Amino acid sequence: MKHTHENERTNENRDESSYSRREVLKMAALAGSGIVVGMSGMASLFAINSSFKANGLVHPESEDTQPEEVNKDAIPFYGARQAGIGTPQQMYMYFAAFDMISEEVEKLKQILKIWTAYSADMTAGRGLRETNGQQQMNSVRESSISSSAKLTVTFGFGSTLFIRNGIDRFGLASQRPDELNDIPSMPGDSLNPQNSGGDICIQVCSNDPTVAFHVIRKLAAVSSGIAVLRWIQIGFIDGSDGQTPRNLFGFRDGTANIELASEKSKKNHVWVDSSKGPAWMANGTYLVARKVRMDMEKWEQTSLIKQEAIFGRLKNSGAPLGKQDEFDVVTMREIPRNSHVWLARSVGTKILRRSYSYFEGIAPMTGHLNAGLFFISFQQSVHTQFVPMLSLLAKFDALSPFLSTVSSSVFACPPGASEGGFIGEELFKG
Amino acid sequence: MKHTHENERTNENRDESSYSRREVLKMAALAGSGIVVGMSGMASLFAINSSFKANGLVHPESEDTQPEEVNKDAIPFYGARQAGIGTPQQMYMYFAAFDMISEEVEKLKQILKIWTAYSADMTAGRGLRETNGQQQMNSVRESSISSSAKLTVTFGFGSTLFIRNGIDRFGLASQRPDELNDIPSMPGDSLNPQNSGGDICIQVCSNDPTVAFHVIRKLAAVSSGIAVLRWIQIGFIDGSDGQTPRNLFGFRDGTANIELASEKSKKNHVWVDSSKGPAWMANGTYLVARKVRMDMEKWEQTSLIKQEAIFGRLKNSGAPLGKQDEFDVVTMREIPRNSHVWLARSVGTKILRRSYSYFEGIAPMTGHLNAGLFFISFQQSVHTQFVPMLSLLAKFDALSPFLSTVSSSVFACPPGASEGGFIGEELFKG
Repeated sequence: MKHTHENERTNENRDESSYSRREVLKMAALAGSGIVVGMSGMASLFAINSSFKANGLVHPESEDTQPEEVNKDAIPFYGARQAGIGTPQQMYMYFAAFDMISEEVEKLKQILKIWTAYSADMTAGRGLRETNGQQQMNSVRESSISSSAKLTVTFGFGSTLFIRNGIDRFGLASQRPDELNDIPSMPGDSLNPQNSGGDICIQVCSNDPTVAFHVIRKLAAVSSGIAVLRWIQIGFIDGSDGQTPRNLFGFRDGTANIELASEKSKKNHVWVDSSKGPAWMANGTYLVARKVRMDMEKWEQTSLIKQEAIFGRLKNSGAPLGKQDEFDVVTMREIPRNSHVWLARSVGTKILRRSYSYFEGIAPMTGHLNAGLFFISFQQSVHTQFVPMLSLLAKFDALSPFLSTVSSSVFACPPGASEGGFIGEELFKG
Repeated sequence: MKHTHENERTNENRDESSYSRREVLKMAALAGSGIVVGMSGMASLFAINSSFKANGLVHPESEDTQPEEVNKDAIPFYGARQAGIGTPQQMYMYFAAFDMISEEVEKLKQILKIWTAYSADMTAGRGLRETNGQQQMNSVRESSISSSAKLTVTFGFGSTLFIRNGIDRFGLASQRPDELNDIPSMPGDSLNPQNSGGDICIQVCSNDPTVAFHVIRKLAAVSSGIAVLRWIQIGFIDGSDGQTPRNLFGFRDGTANIELASEKSKKNHVWVDSSKGPAWMANGTYLVARKVRMDMEKWEQTSLIKQEAIFGRLKNSGAPLGKQDEFDVVTMREIPRNSHVWLARSVGTKILRRSYSYFEGIAPMTGHLNAGLFFISFQQSVHTQFVPMLSLLAKFDALSPFLSTVSSSVFACPPGASEGGFIGEELFKG
């Protein structure tokens, strides 16, 4: 394939990061259509695009078509911190892990720019652009993204992005946070490495499952040739508006999040302080994702009184044992010392829980349900907040015999992007 | 295990089918707790229950606890025809196929009675009863079932229920409808028999995915020892309120259903006439379920103009080619003769579509999405309405190269149950 390098506009004086949203999306249209781009860097990509336009291969209307709608009450994508962490939990989640194919840092920056532009556009309800062959049309949508979809797209970087098998593919090894060390092996772990880790994670949450599907699909499509999907986990919570969701054992999950409701407490427990760890993680947070299979049949055979003793809470109301309401303060001496709540609280650390239930069919012979919790938490430090809690729970929790952890991942979620910038930008300034 | 047969009440004069809802649920509580019941028939089960109560093994409050809430705007379970067919489509589906373990017809009737009672209760929002060990408490719920969940539970009988490998397990072979013959093998079929067929299907639909999960879970749990889950398929549609859902290729799916909106047209095309087929199927319908994997990556590479030519409709509006609005009348000469719409309409038969999209992860090496459509249609006759349409599509449809059918099932959905009766009751009167 031969491309003319002449360009209708002068690009020399433009900084790469100042490309307009529309320009980045146009580059993505080319990337997504499977065109092999032999040159690195954004300027050459843009030149190719202009060349395509001159050859009539880009739909003539694509450049002039303005986005038609913007959801004024959508959750903003741009901001000092990423959405989908402290923002209210939506009903549906698609959580994808990608591995980089390319080993060029410019390609990494390129895909982060493309993903940022797409995520901002889709979050704002500007629709899913089509990249059919050489066409890119704003007016064609796989799915309508209305404000009620409450779409958020959240990015994280895995340990392998910084160094993999001892190789520093992107020159980022010195930027690797210590927090990205694997979580130590725990009793009850039965991990599948194929469904754990990955270079980059994208958590897509929405109240509309079709929207979440198409957002992941689109982000995967535009990364063609640069990154490849490693695994996807989907999940759901119950639609009890504003109430703490129940896990599949019927107990409310995330009641303690109320202690992290204020911005001040999130600053203390969730958002990374600029004084700790690498500078690029300021206003970021660390994400732990652990897929925990739950034995529904065994639970069904466990009496209510025993179930409540195991959790340390009443099933119906969610109140701590001995109390009336879900948000009543836990009195430690009133709940069993091997209960889930007693052990989790005894550590004294706080994490922001944002988990989703999953269901993935049945075991062919027994008919047992393959279901559980895709546990997600956000914290300033995995090793001082999360690991001590997990270690205690894995050893002593009365709930453990009902659980089996089948995947485990840690990602560093960078701060949010500002308009004109891109997710993870700070990482490349170090 | 030895049980006293003495009974606090006199049961002699009661017909089996007149057991109260609460009595049937109590039987289910025992069934669900894994207690092996060596005697057949309902009366003995009830006797055992009373015996348990006398022995203090049944929670003393369980009999006196009244259901607390009833959703006045829930979709009624009881009625001449089953819900979940002609009723508005909900956002989520759990479709389960069960195989009978027991070969006693009384056990089959028993589980149908139990399932009917549970389904009616849960649909009405009376909550999910717990069957923890010997307890059964109305006040304990895995999930709140509000009217907004719009739960429907729909039952169907597979060919094997009537005769399996030449064996008439339940004495029902003479009642088998000819319509239950397998759908002939089609080009593009790549069927997995493990995920096809089954003795009994239950389609659970709700706007709350957690509700749908727990309803299937509970119906599976109470069938313990009588039936076993064979497969479960879950699905979703987009949340575009009241609009025709889009399939994962971005095209509206089910536009033609408007031709079946009236009760009169449903009588002509969906509900089985008492003059045709076995008498027990009057007011029933035949369900076809075919899982169709869709090649998302190939579709992504297909231009919009080609996509629209393949479907015969515009992607954004859903209008037939050459028209403005989704529901404009199709002019056959304006759309390609190998388009999906042209071929489907050329047969001249009408079917009621009620399909759901599915997503089941990615292929490990390629990252390709395992996604598609769990096609469901309801019709008076599979062989005169559905098979001719499918045969034409499978051969000539321009969409076929993007599709692969991985499961296929046909079920006979009996009429609805009336209060005091049970689903499929008519089958045992033949």
